[in-house]
Amino acid sequence: MKKLEVGILGATGMVGQRLVSLLENHPWFELKWLAASDKSAGKPYAEACHWRLRVPMPKAARDLMVHECQPGHAPQLLFASLDAKVAGTVERDFARSGHVVVSNSSSHRMDADVPLLIPEVNPDHLALVRTQRQQRNWKGMIVTNPNCTTVGLVMSLAPLDRAFGLEKVLMTSLQAVSGAGYPGVPALDILGNVIPYIHNEEEKVESEAQKLLGKLADGRIKAGTFVVSAHCNRVLVEDGHTESVSVALKSKASLEDITETWRKFRSVPQELGLPSAPQHPIVVRDENDRPQPKFDVETERGMATVVGRLRPCSVLQFKYTALSHNTIRGAAGAALLNAELMKAEGYLD
Amino acid sequence: MKKLEVGILGATGMVGQRLVSLLENHPWFELKWLAASDKSAGKPYAEACHWRLRVPMPKAARDLMVHECQPGHAPQLLFASLDAKVAGTVERDFARSGHVVVSNSSSHRMDADVPLLIPEVNPDHLALVRTQRQQRNWKGMIVTNPNCTTVGLVMSLAPLDRAFGLEKVLMTSLQAVSGAGYPGVPALDILGNVIPYIHNEEEKVESEAQKLLGKLADGRIKAGTFVVSAHCNRVLVEDGHTESVSVALKSKASLEDITETWRKFRSVPQELGLPSAPQHPIVVRDENDRPQPKFDVETERGMATVVGRLRPCSVLQFKYTALSHNTIRGAAGAALLNAELMKAEGYLD
Amino acid sequence: MKKLEVGILGATGMVGQRLVSLLENHPWFELKWLAASDKSAGKPYAEACHWRLRVPMPKAARDLMVHECQPGHAPQLLFASLDAKVAGTVERDFARSGHVVVSNSSSHRMDADVPLLIPEVNPDHLALVRTQRQQRNWKGMIVTNPNCTTVGLVMSLAPLDRAFGLEKVLMTSLQAVSGAGYPGVPALDILGNVIPYIHNEEEKVESEAQKLLGKLADGRIKAGTFVVSAHCNRVLVEDGHTESVSVALKSKASLEDITETWRKFRSVPQELGLPSAPQHPIVVRDENDRPQPKFDVETERGMATVVGRLRPCSVLQFKYTALSHNTIRGAAGAALLNAELMKAEGYLD
Amino acid sequence: MKKLEVGILGATGMVGQRLVSLLENHPWFELKWLAASDKSAGKPYAEACHWRLRVPMPKAARDLMVHECQPGHAPQLLFASLDAKVAGTVERDFARSGHVVVSNSSSHRMDADVPLLIPEVNPDHLALVRTQRQQRNWKGMIVTNPNCTTVGLVMSLAPLDRAFGLEKVLMTSLQAVSGAGYPGVPALDILGNVIPYIHNEEEKVESEAQKLLGKLADGRIKAGTFVVSAHCNRVLVEDGHTESVSVALKSKASLEDITETWRKFRSVPQELGLPSAPQHPIVVRDENDRPQPKFDVETERGMATVVGRLRPCSVLQFKYTALSHNTIRGAAGAALLNAELMKAEGYLD
Repeated sequence: MKKLEVGILGATGMVGQRLVSLLENHPWFELKWLAASDKSAGKPYAEACHWRLRVPMPKAARDLMVHECQPGHAPQLLFASLDAKVAGTVERDFARSGHVVVSNSSSHRMDADVPLLIPEVNPDHLALVRTQRQQRNWKGMIVTNPNCTTVGLVMSLAPLDRAFGLEKVLMTSLQAVSGAGYPGVPALDILGNVIPYIHNEEEKVESEAQKLLGKLADGRIKAGTFVVSAHCNRVLVEDGHTESVSVALKSKASLEDITETWRKFRSVPQELGLPSAPQHPIVVRDENDRPQPKFDVETERGMATVVGRLRPCSVLQFKYTALSHNTIRGAAGAALLNAELMKAEGYLD
Repeated sequence: MKKLEVGILGATGMVGQRLVSLLENHPWFELKWLAASDKSAGKPYAEACHWRLRVPMPKAARDLMVHECQPGHAPQLLFASLDAKVAGTVERDFARSGHVVVSNSSSHRMDADVPLLIPEVNPDHLALVRTQRQQRNWKGMIVTNPNCTTVGLVMSLAPLDRAFGLEKVLMTSLQAVSGAGYPGVPALDILGNVIPYIHNEEEKVESEAQKLLGKLADGRIKAGTFVVSAHCNRVLVEDGHTESVSVALKSKASLEDITETWRKFRSVPQELGLPSAPQHPIVVRDENDRPQPKFDVETERGMATVVGRLRPCSVLQFKYTALSHNTIRGAAGAALLNAELMKAEGYLD
Repeated sequence: MKKLEVGILGATGMVGQRLVSLLENHPWFELKWLAASDKSAGKPYAEACHWRLRVPMPKAARDLMVHECQPGHAPQLLFASLDAKVAGTVERDFARSGHVVVSNSSSHRMDADVPLLIPEVNPDHLALVRTQRQQRNWKGMIVTNPNCTTVGLVMSLAPLDRAFGLEKVLMTSLQAVSGAGYPGVPALDILGNVIPYIHNEEEKVESEAQKLLGKLADGRIKAGTFVVSAHCNRVLVEDGHTESVSVALKSKASLEDITETWRKFRSVPQELGLPSAPQHPIVVRDENDRPQPKFDVETERGMATVVGRLRPCSVLQFKYTALSHNTIRGAAGAALLNAELMKAEGYLD
Repeated sequence: MKKLEVGILGATGMVGQRLVSLLENHPWFELKWLAASDKSAGKPYAEACHWRLRVPMPKAARDLMVHECQPGHAPQLLFASLDAKVAGTVERDFARSGHVVVSNSSSHRMDADVPLLIPEVNPDHLALVRTQRQQRNWKGMIVTNPNCTTVGLVMSLAPLDRAFGLEKVLMTSLQAVSGAGYPGVPALDILGNVIPYIHNEEEKVESEAQKLLGKLADGRIKAGTFVVSAHCNRVLVEDGHTESVSVALKSKASLEDITETWRKFRSVPQELGLPSAPQHPIVVRDENDRPQPKFDVETERGMATVVGRLRPCSVLQFKYTALSHNTIRGAAGAALLNAELMKAEGYLD
């Protein structure tokens, strides 16, 4: 099978670098085109990009020329990890010009006609692109993945919502510095410190969770009716958002029911055998002090959500700790899995 | 006024060191006696103690001889910061022998006849020592302060409980490594990591909060009826426990009401002018990203609880961030303020 | 005595903030004027400056208006801690207009007619400003202090050079992140890492050391004839540059001779009683694992160089560890002490 | 080919864990036997060992029973990574009983009849075991690898010594916390700090380097005649010792000569194709800010020494930065490569 040619908008940032890395030797996609800000355009990627991953820059990407973020000669399928300031407009321009924009940016996530997807959670929401194309009269489309803090939370909640109905969720995050991009958080701000604030993060988590766990009907999403409250903190961790979560469900569920529901959880990406899908979307750890970013963030190549410490909560019903890799499962890997779902379901033909 | 001679049981640990430091030039107390484990006994303090504070070891303490933890020639008033394994027995032995033991250990905190005190919160609970001395037929007594994670939480809740009645509290902590003592947390465990578990910590916070905000009547404490649920995490911070707190109250209160209640909060230590009392037990920060351990942990010489980010909570009613210094307000300073309260109220005459 | 009014060029950066802090309640100088980049100009300091020190912003500075960096209404005496890109020109403009510019920037340090000063080391070099004013036909003048890495090294070498003659110096630094300013080093670059390179730093240390320990004669500096080789590394420390130093001297000196030379070292600032002068410019620690930034960086309010671990070196003659506070003794405090020396010696009348 | 059965003395420590990990799926050796301190003996490895590596514990090791460190049923070939307090005696007991002890401990490294080996550097020194067995009348033998700080230094020096002759070496290390074992360095000691002292480390580096680069003749090692001086510092890095090195050679060599010598360096392990041998024992980085532990420590599976920043040194002749993985190339991998060399050269038949 000939691989589908793909490009990246915003290829030099942290998420762009993860995309470049994850696309190396991808069985379905071939990275052929890179774009970034004007100051990078016109240079080969190896020169334009201040590579910050521990894994080396893929050889094939080194010599790709970096283009400006303008439609024209780009491949049809584009991953977008642009700076929030420009993402909205650029993505719209590309979609209007016929490109399929698989975006990690927050700009269009909450647009009523834009799918906000976690392939294990709400793959059916992808159909919302039909509404989008009709209403906007676009040849292309925009599909988005959630914020890096939302993904781990909603992944761990989704099977519980299906089985028992969600009522209330209270989540406190301890977020890694890579979530702020590069250069991102200054060492002077975070060494020996906690920053109890991340701009707009709590609002994103609360609204995205309700859209993700909503129902698609009549060409629109009816948001979930549960409530979510988030506290977001920054800590000195490189990769991996840790979340302390308390939950109340509508139906009765024992701790054993919950553990079993998590362990058995498989969904469309696993059934379709999508290349980036984790075998186990939720991995349950039994030790009393796990998950920990240091040991668990790379579980299933960074694509699993790892949960542990399930126990009763005297205020809601039960509580636990969840961890997921914020630049893989929470960003680049999320976009990639979205594109794989689209390919498998015929949206890229 | 002649100063009262005092001693320290467990003088070489992290909390013992803080006590030694806080007692330097204390207006009421004079440090005259130190005790620690057998391997330290018989050495001068400067030699026995691996001093770990940034402020230098007080000159007067350097030459004090370290004794074994046995009653006999010790002063009547003793601060105790012993290892949990031996604290229970040693404190009992000293109290039985007539000493006033002002303890930071958890061993006797939840004993029905032992006061668990935050002088700003429940100074009247001190009267419980009468029950204690009668029942145990002791000449001395034991008085305790709460766990380092409990203090900041309960300090911020107490004035709200008085004014509006507490119903539910959900707290997630991001705790400093000094809370684990010395050597405590290995660098290999916590560098670039979060540990989502601290042995027994959640249980302590939940039970101590209810005792602290309970009512003393007929020689016993009737615990508070609100519920508390805690998630406790360790992060790479030296000093200062940060807490993300969500609360529901029994009576209606606006965010302005809460802020005003915090700002106005003064209590017995402030009225009595106790030497270690902070002028403002609760300091409210207006910035959207404070309190932070780096900048705020030393507020009021480490004796204030600093709060900020007050905002609505969609699951309970409102949420905020609290910070307090875990080895000062949460341990050594807490014990010292307890002793000052006892002195001011005539318990040491 | 009426205080002398002073201003700061580059008041919002890390060194500017330290200057603002050190000038609070200064007995000789009163901070009356602040300037910074155009985007800060026109705002009160509290608003323009993202304050990053643990000590709070002085109240008196909060409401000072920030000006553009242009001569005109500024006080005669100006501290300069401007970004290297603009420092050269701006400082020259102010000096030409009659201002005394006491600069922390590297732009003019190596100019043949600009004094590069450490008041304990080469206070006589201040007379070089006479040459400067003649040659440049300026009413004002520029006086500079060395790079933050040079200061601790040269302070520890100066008394040895006087007593025994320096021949060779090999120094490896472990430098704090605050040395790179703010935002400076990204957390993603330095967490769990060492960066073995700091742009131009080694060149500065090598050339500045020779100028500082040179002789002033006939209106010019004859550089020291010893050789210096530097390796500069960045590590995850907030404040305090640690230096591993090996030295060969021209005359024979025992380890006891060296220790005694360090301990006895006093110089002009101590004799003149300059307000910011440390009582002991060099503090010798006897423990085998000191100095350490955590415990020793604040020695003498950050104005001392702390040395320890003196022992033989099989390649040169002896070796030791030196530590000094890079934004106090190595920058803001250095400039302040220079100004105090100038005041005491009549250069500001 | 049937694999050779091997065991580990000190299997639960940091180096023991690395050995267990590196022996998983080893083509020549099969891990069959584990021993550790008495408190671990009698438990399965999964229970006895507090596993601290990011890679998971190999399945095959989980159920191996941990034995006491006593000869008897152990395999002939044993890797030893025992605590320094007991290593000397235990290793001797096993060697006397006929075991081949491939040790990472310092106890016997400097014994005149014990080979201290880096297979790329002095593989011929292995023949020293003949002297050892004769003199000690042992059926077994002890072979050692150098200290973790020595390895990277000597690897980078060896080809230069061969080509140009070493005269003087001055090295300052910035060492990772894993070098101190587990629990090792307390977070409270190293957070935001540098510790300029590691017990006995400088002495080890200086003496081991001379033995490693010495000549074997007449059954004894004639130590190298160059001088080495070391400054050893601890920094907050997990794995990877960074070294700032200055060197003087006996013969003239340009920077190009040195780079080319490093790049071309291959030795016996490469020629023999030993399974753990890096393809390039020395990897030269061209960037001006490399090597860095974060990006380079895993080069060649942690078995290469990575060098960079080669430039002139005004005190000696040239200087550079070297990095090597302290628990792989500097400990577990070093021992493993020694055993592979012994196997390939017929010492284990």
